[in-house]
Amino acid sequence: MPDKKDDVYGDHISNKFNDELMALKTRFLKMGGLVETQIDSAVKALVDGNGYLAEEIRAKDKLVDRMEMDVDEEAMLIIARRQPTARDLRLVISVIRMVADLERVGDEAKKIAKFAIKLSEEGQSPQGYVEVRHIGAHVMGMLHDSLDAFARLDSEQALRVMKEDKRVDEEYQGAARTLLTFMMEDARNISRCMSVMWVLRALERVGDHACNIAENVIFMVKGEDVRHTPMEEAERVVGR
Amino acid sequence: MPDKKDDVYGDHISNKFNDELMALKTRFLKMGGLVETQIDSAVKALVDGNGYLAEEIRAKDKLVDRMEMDVDEEAMLIIARRQPTARDLRLVISVIRMVADLERVGDEAKKIAKFAIKLSEEGQSPQGYVEVRHIGAHVMGMLHDSLDAFARLDSEQALRVMKEDKRVDEEYQGAARTLLTFMMEDARNISRCMSVMWVLRALERVGDHACNIAENVIFMVKGEDVRHTPMEEAERVVGR
Repeated sequence: MPDKKDDVYGDHISNKFNDELMALKTRFLKMGGLVETQIDSAVKALVDGNGYLAEEIRAKDKLVDRMEMDVDEEAMLIIARRQPTARDLRLVISVIRMVADLERVGDEAKKIAKFAIKLSEEGQSPQGYVEVRHIGAHVMGMLHDSLDAFARLDSEQALRVMKEDKRVDEEYQGAARTLLTFMMEDARNISRCMSVMWVLRALERVGDHACNIAENVIFMVKGEDVRHTPMEEAERVVGR
Repeated sequence: MPDKKDDVYGDHISNKFNDELMALKTRFLKMGGLVETQIDSAVKALVDGNGYLAEEIRAKDKLVDRMEMDVDEEAMLIIARRQPTARDLRLVISVIRMVADLERVGDEAKKIAKFAIKLSEEGQSPQGYVEVRHIGAHVMGMLHDSLDAFARLDSEQALRVMKEDKRVDEEYQGAARTLLTFMMEDARNISRCMSVMWVLRALERVGDHACNIAENVIFMVKGEDVRHTPMEEAERVVGR
């Protein structure tokens, strides 16, 4: 495609193409919504010691995986059938890249759920939970904002997400130090604090993935790859 | 492609296209070679307490990042210009996905290098180094084999890499338990053992990325997505 027949019905074809792109976006955002819920539930399951909720998250991860494969397949079909170029191609390629990030966020939720089960079985250990709640809220905000930036193709919002990543890293470092202190104070804390440490690490990774999504949004909108570039350079690209 | 004009000059056009695909493969494999060296050097820097080598790894990560962006750009140009379909499209899309894995392996090397510097400054702590060496060798083998499977489009070798992943996970769990014991025995071990724990975690992630690359090789060769499928299903796909 396009062959002669398509030229005659050019507008129609182009509308169908647009519909396909819209459907891809919608499907991706639906997966994004599910993954957001997974992380939100995982933090809840941990803090509330809710093993039942944690089991539910682990089961639902299969759905996340399925959605990743579906989005990827749809994206590849669009490339094969529609041979998009320029902005359309950037959209499809970005979706392929971002869907891998979403799937990994889903994996982090599953990991947190695993520790939620472990910790709820060992009894309450509120050490580090304030930090989990705090960093959890922060990275969930970033994830939400990055998906929102994608939905509205808003590169300025994407830039704001990128800027948050440094703050999350600092919060994570601080929380890790706090947990290390608990561990040193009493050896009986070690095992449980380690679990909380892995949870914090998983949340910090969620922030990284949100940041990757944001970088892809800027790439889609501005056509420039701002990965691995200094923040001032990303600002310049978005400001144009 | 192919339209009438291409049919006339079919061979020529197709040869140039093939050259471009080959160049993409070569560039990707070159990045793969660099990333392999980075991980190898990172483990050496840690075990030998070689802070100088560790600094070198951190500096070289910029080159890895640059290569990721170059491969991605080349892949997108091929899609836009050549509008590949079927197997060719799967190759290009897989390269886009795998290059993200390689870049993350590079990040893990950088992370290990950071801990190598930290640990060398704190003085020798051979606890857990046997495990680092062992798991390091294992995942480096997986990474090498996955890249080799890509170079030769060998789906059976890719399957073997996928099967290794479970063993690495078990080795990692065992090593983590050993370190936990050291930490519980003596609180003075905690900080250093934590660093080694992060290194083991980074290596385990390298195994995951090698596995992702292997899954993409099977996708390229067989046209079926074996991510998130049971091993028996992957075996069936490869055995066809």
